[in-house]
Amino acid sequence: MTPFTSKDFTQRMERGVTRATEAGLTGLLVTPGPDLTYFTGYQPTAITERITLLLLSADQEPHLIVPVLEQPDAAAAAGAPAVIMTTWADGADPYAAPARLLDPAGRYAISDSAWSMHLLGLQQAVPGSSYTSMTQTLPMLRAVKDQDEVDRLAAAGAAADATYEDILGVRFEGRTEREVGGDLARLLIEHGHSQVDFTVVGSGPNGANPHHEMGDRVIRRGDLVVLDFGGLKDGYGSDTTRTVHVGPPAAEEREIFDVVRRAQQAAFEAVRPGVPCQEIDRVARRVIDEAGYGEYFIHRTGHGIGLTTHEPPYLVEGEEQPLVPGMCFSIEPGIYLPGRLGVRIEDIVTVTASAGRRLNNTSHDLREVA
Amino acid sequence: MTPFTSKDFTQRMERGVTRATEAGLTGLLVTPGPDLTYFTGYQPTAITERITLLLLSADQEPHLIVPVLEQPDAAAAAGAPAVIMTTWADGADPYAAPARLLDPAGRYAISDSAWSMHLLGLQQAVPGSSYTSMTQTLPMLRAVKDQDEVDRLAAAGAAADATYEDILGVRFEGRTEREVGGDLARLLIEHGHSQVDFTVVGSGPNGANPHHEMGDRVIRRGDLVVLDFGGLKDGYGSDTTRTVHVGPPAAEEREIFDVVRRAQQAAFEAVRPGVPCQEIDRVARRVIDEAGYGEYFIHRTGHGIGLTTHEPPYLVEGEEQPLVPGMCFSIEPGIYLPGRLGVRIEDIVTVTASAGRRLNNTSHDLREVA
Repeated sequence: MTPFTSKDFTQRMERGVTRATEAGLTGLLVTPGPDLTYFTGYQPTAITERITLLLLSADQEPHLIVPVLEQPDAAAAAGAPAVIMTTWADGADPYAAPARLLDPAGRYAISDSAWSMHLLGLQQAVPGSSYTSMTQTLPMLRAVKDQDEVDRLAAAGAAADATYEDILGVRFEGRTEREVGGDLARLLIEHGHSQVDFTVVGSGPNGANPHHEMGDRVIRRGDLVVLDFGGLKDGYGSDTTRTVHVGPPAAEEREIFDVVRRAQQAAFEAVRPGVPCQEIDRVARRVIDEAGYGEYFIHRTGHGIGLTTHEPPYLVEGEEQPLVPGMCFSIEPGIYLPGRLGVRIEDIVTVTASAGRRLNNTSHDLREVA
Repeated sequence: MTPFTSKDFTQRMERGVTRATEAGLTGLLVTPGPDLTYFTGYQPTAITERITLLLLSADQEPHLIVPVLEQPDAAAAAGAPAVIMTTWADGADPYAAPARLLDPAGRYAISDSAWSMHLLGLQQAVPGSSYTSMTQTLPMLRAVKDQDEVDRLAAAGAAADATYEDILGVRFEGRTEREVGGDLARLLIEHGHSQVDFTVVGSGPNGANPHHEMGDRVIRRGDLVVLDFGGLKDGYGSDTTRTVHVGPPAAEEREIFDVVRRAQQAAFEAVRPGVPCQEIDRVARRVIDEAGYGEYFIHRTGHGIGLTTHEPPYLVEGEEQPLVPGMCFSIEPGIYLPGRLGVRIEDIVTVTASAGRRLNNTSHDLREVA
């Protein structure tokens, strides 16, 4: 994977300024988190109370304000050559540098997740300025991925797929969920992830709780086991779910599994530019409803993924945002019979010019494990 | 570990209101993240653009406003019985419910990391209200842990210690850093962690970069290897570092290792209530300076830990905050010779009534691995 270069980041920053101007803003104020990573490649090790702020506006070069302690880290970011860096030290007024750079009567969009602490500091330091949230004003800024980002998500997906193929070969029966979860974590790292965000192992009745992570239950022959795992690889997220069976499944298990598989497939086939997000949710839900399991599909159908493992767009009733080529999200319908079992199948899907393309490509068959 | 009960959370909320009143505030506005976990035990699966807000004030019962989608999750939190829950649905004005509950002329402290998007929404919905940041007004709200929290941090530390003891038995020579990192991830999960935040394996010259995570370098006989790993167990963080040697170390390696060990020990022994945070940093730095390696200790000495793996207090020059019994933080001096090697030793330490107590207790000897 070719690393993003300062040229890539310059182009993103220029696009950001153009969109800000079109929206009638003076500029953008970008804080640590996915927005800052997107524009500069810079990810502070820890997001602390010390302000780090990227200022993008039409009337000056991009400025990145960083705590002096973190300057070496910031300078090492791929996008650093594209910005003018200003540092501030502990003991100094953290809002003095931004106050010098901001238009005293400017209107700025600020990262949704910018700490309120810092917005309060800016409002006090520049009383004539005003602010709006990035997403309210520019909702599509990161939801639509460029090709390089899709490639990275595909690579993360392939690593998650390799993890799934490998986990099929480990022992399930007689081991705890936690032990299998440990195997998943090891495999994600071995296949190139830098961070393991979740390793859900929901066996038997635990599978019926979509929020169950893993526990000390010993997995038995006859269990369905929900495996939902992911993390970050080269900065981009993976997230896939497969449900496996320990030994041969019973007829009812095969039937429920097949309903979920058809729901996932139908939702996937409904993906194309212009379709509202909620429509994908409805398509999945309709298949499960018609099979008589509607009340057991108790969560939304999917969420966006990119620099984080959960971000817009959300595939949920009420989300009218139309799909756009380059959007990437999960499609993950499930059926949960309380106290008995759960089944979920999840792939990351990207929107192409005409359809959907899966970034997870392991088999949807109900696989037996030992 | 006994779970926190709604009574525990009620006591924390009452303490929060008392401190708010003492500080001249109308109340506290608490948003998802460690503050909300602290007061209610509720951790939304994903922190999204949908507002979740806990309102604590002297003149009414605690109110928790949640998106209707997330209501079942919130209702399942241990602190849920202690709050009045109000839901709002997609399509409704997210700020209508808080606007009804806030004092139109009230002054509130809001969680530092509350999304700016939501603060902007509140400022617009309740124009006569005013806001200050939680930490600016009540800096010690979460930094001082109660006994149950210290017990949880100790349990997380013990699990990290068990991980270290186990990793000493794996093969290093001839395997990649990533493979050993995979072992660390597996062991952390096996020893009860729900989440693996970092598994740093810095071998040979890679150890000289404290921000190196792990790579494809094959570990060789003669390498020093920095192992820095941690995550969350039962909601509380672990974070420990040991540096091991593949085969017998050379004299210079032993010497550098010994300087770091003495620095860590001296900083630990300096811990007692009333000592400013920066003094712990100075003590560690002095040992390394006097040994002639001062320029190679290139980061702060430590950071707080609790519901997150990096939080106040920070042990760094300029931080004058005095230590208080119940504070928990890392002490992690290191020496980094660029292009050659690195050594770091890190324990989590809690402040007792009279001294420091380590929550990591594996040997500080330079251990040889195979």
